[in-house]
Amino acid sequence: MIEDREPIRVALLGCGTVGTEVVRLLQEHPTEYAARTGAPVRVTGVAVRRPHKHPDVPEQLLTTDAAALVEGSADVIVELIGGIEPARSLLLAALRAGKSVVTANKALLAEHGSELYAAADANGVDIYFEAAVAGAIPLLRPLRESLAGDRINRVTGIVNGTSNYILSAMDSTGAGYEETLEEANRLGYAEADPTADVDGFDAASKAAILASLAFHTRVGAGDVHREGISGIGAGDIEAARSLNRTVKLLAICERVIDEDGTESVSARVHPAMIPRDHPLAGVGGAFNAVFVEAESAGQLMFYGQGAGGAPTASAVLGDLVAAARNVVVSGKGPRESAHAQLPARAMDWTPTRYHISLDVADRPGVLSQVAATFNEHDVSISVVRQQGRGADASLVVVTHTAADSALRATVEQIARLSSVNEVASVMRVEGEQS
Amino acid sequence: MIEDREPIRVALLGCGTVGTEVVRLLQEHPTEYAARTGAPVRVTGVAVRRPHKHPDVPEQLLTTDAAALVEGSADVIVELIGGIEPARSLLLAALRAGKSVVTANKALLAEHGSELYAAADANGVDIYFEAAVAGAIPLLRPLRESLAGDRINRVTGIVNGTSNYILSAMDSTGAGYEETLEEANRLGYAEADPTADVDGFDAASKAAILASLAFHTRVGAGDVHREGISGIGAGDIEAARSLNRTVKLLAICERVIDEDGTESVSARVHPAMIPRDHPLAGVGGAFNAVFVEAESAGQLMFYGQGAGGAPTASAVLGDLVAAARNVVVSGKGPRESAHAQLPARAMDWTPTRYHISLDVADRPGVLSQVAATFNEHDVSISVVRQQGRGADASLVVVTHTAADSALRATVEQIARLSSVNEVASVMRVEGEQS
Repeated sequence: MIEDREPIRVALLGCGTVGTEVVRLLQEHPTEYAARTGAPVRVTGVAVRRPHKHPDVPEQLLTTDAAALVEGSADVIVELIGGIEPARSLLLAALRAGKSVVTANKALLAEHGSELYAAADANGVDIYFEAAVAGAIPLLRPLRESLAGDRINRVTGIVNGTSNYILSAMDSTGAGYEETLEEANRLGYAEADPTADVDGFDAASKAAILASLAFHTRVGAGDVHREGISGIGAGDIEAARSLNRTVKLLAICERVIDEDGTESVSARVHPAMIPRDHPLAGVGGAFNAVFVEAESAGQLMFYGQGAGGAPTASAVLGDLVAAARNVVVSGKGPRESAHAQLPARAMDWTPTRYHISLDVADRPGVLSQVAATFNEHDVSISVVRQQGRGADASLVVVTHTAADSALRATVEQIARLSSVNEVASVMRVEGEQS
Repeated sequence: MIEDREPIRVALLGCGTVGTEVVRLLQEHPTEYAARTGAPVRVTGVAVRRPHKHPDVPEQLLTTDAAALVEGSADVIVELIGGIEPARSLLLAALRAGKSVVTANKALLAEHGSELYAAADANGVDIYFEAAVAGAIPLLRPLRESLAGDRINRVTGIVNGTSNYILSAMDSTGAGYEETLEEANRLGYAEADPTADVDGFDAASKAAILASLAFHTRVGAGDVHREGISGIGAGDIEAARSLNRTVKLLAICERVIDEDGTESVSARVHPAMIPRDHPLAGVGGAFNAVFVEAESAGQLMFYGQGAGGAPTASAVLGDLVAAARNVVVSGKGPRESAHAQLPARAMDWTPTRYHISLDVADRPGVLSQVAATFNEHDVSISVVRQQGRGADASLVVVTHTAADSALRATVEQIARLSSVNEVASVMRVEGEQS
């Protein structure tokens, strides 16, 4: 009988909504977890700062001594503390003590992933982290394992629920950024301090993890170009709408191939307009989705809930079953694959496309002056639309692909043209052929 | 150096478009496959019926003797023959000879999966089959592994590209079934004999595999209720459109829980109306998508190409890397998980909802007569809409959930009512709250 086998001992570090859910599910369905793992799965300790704040966790499991749990008899350590320290030191200690690790800590992995993967490898144990990106969506295992025989060219993700909630709401109500953020705050979709979400830090950590897996290359958070959504106004959303596009905060991981065949990896987070018929355009509210383009598989999309206690617990438990089963059968999950080690592409030299909306003087020759400026920077124009008359005269330009620095320089010079009253909106364009 | 290690030897059985692509990719990118596997991956034989028909495969690899390859020195056997025999005997022989197996053979797995899983288990080797369902979409690994810590309640898939192409085209052109099938034939989206696709056999095999994985229960093709799309007319599509719904051929795998808590598994393939804002409604053309509802993860969707040489090769190669890596590290993939063994639910007792469109006589009392019939069968009505006058008078009814047999009996009795001229359209309704 499976139930009579030596149990796999699991210790949790940190126990917020996700941890509480993990403990609850393990204790409510012991037979199912035993069947899936090949042995009973037993929680033997839960390290928290304030034990009296955890009435849902059996008291005898609670401890304030995380280090003791890591050094103790557990087979698998589940880390749900978040942040860099003490999570990093605790996990390194756990791996060195021969324990497998399951973590949801995206910031830690983006900053110190290599160190952790190396420690896992050196000690013959596993590190799993499905919950670190896109919550419940099974994404990292497919990238690491299902697509291991393919060549991924691009990963484009909506990986921050708060930003996506705000942008979706701005799109459907026409309201401005500040107003929508306040509403999101009120409804619990944004933290009191939303910086990590709206300024793209959270998405940048996830982009680093995705790029590392997709391109078999070490990419850290520092390699990721990052722009948030706080500069987006109702005018930008309206401009997108008038072109049948919508604005999303995207994490983009791309294999860039130069004319001479040299490959590099661009990892970036910024808002961009995408066509309304793109599969990512319909991803509304706090949902996450990741669009993958691979050489053989073609286009794939993964969609689901990116955050929340139960969804994140689902991802953590999937990893826990895998790690525990490996303990039972003396197996081993996939190790870090960084054999390609492609260089990081600086944003300046990353090919992008811009949409630029200008308030212009209503007089002849404006278009030729603007077009000349694009020409000077070797930026080729895809679409121009002139609208309105008098004070309402406007010019909308969508470029072909060019180096981001050339596009930025073009916009700066255009802003100084006498015939241009104001640069009303500048936004990158993604998800369509250039 | 990885390149100097003992290579993993791979033999292919069958070599159509998928096999040719697999051989090409392995031979074009040896360094990448070696890095991902931990050892060189070498194709040592390809069994085909007519060697001269395979100019793209190096001649010295080709053989007509599949049995010899299976008994030979290969570590992993990739089966791309399809059909039951000789595939079944060859794979059983391979597993018994201690070789791991990668297969894309949905019919074989749906009919003889248990036998193959047991043989793999008894001999300590792997059987992987990602390509058997939804082509390139990484789906089986997420179900088996990522969601191993969750409880899946429902899997709803568009898993047959030909049917989806036809239904999408009927929806956008308003054309009838026969005409659209002919067009699909002409464009290469339908086989000369489209029976397996349009009559739901292909989808039923996939439903059996999905239900087995999702519910840890053995479900065979014979347990799957099956209806195809050949009976769908332009009127059904139009009826769906007028209710802001669209018609899809769905493979549905569902955990049904009776009032007394008894659980059973309903696996079925039939056309159904779904709301246009359902994530599956936007899946057009030959694409596949699978919508999963799990207790903790909530709603997930996996989207991508369901067929084709390169997409299927991507899935086969992902499995091949996994199987080969397990040979290198003496590891072992997940085994069959059939611990729940829930009983199969007969279609008669499966709760469904119907949309019924009737041409009725234009006289008072029709509605009450129809409503009485529903009442007699204990079927509760959700929406009724009366439209038109005279010869055009029609009645549209959408029911609440009831046992499928009760709904069918109701429709039969209604068809015999004197006030009903014709039952214009009957279609199940999925993807919304009842």
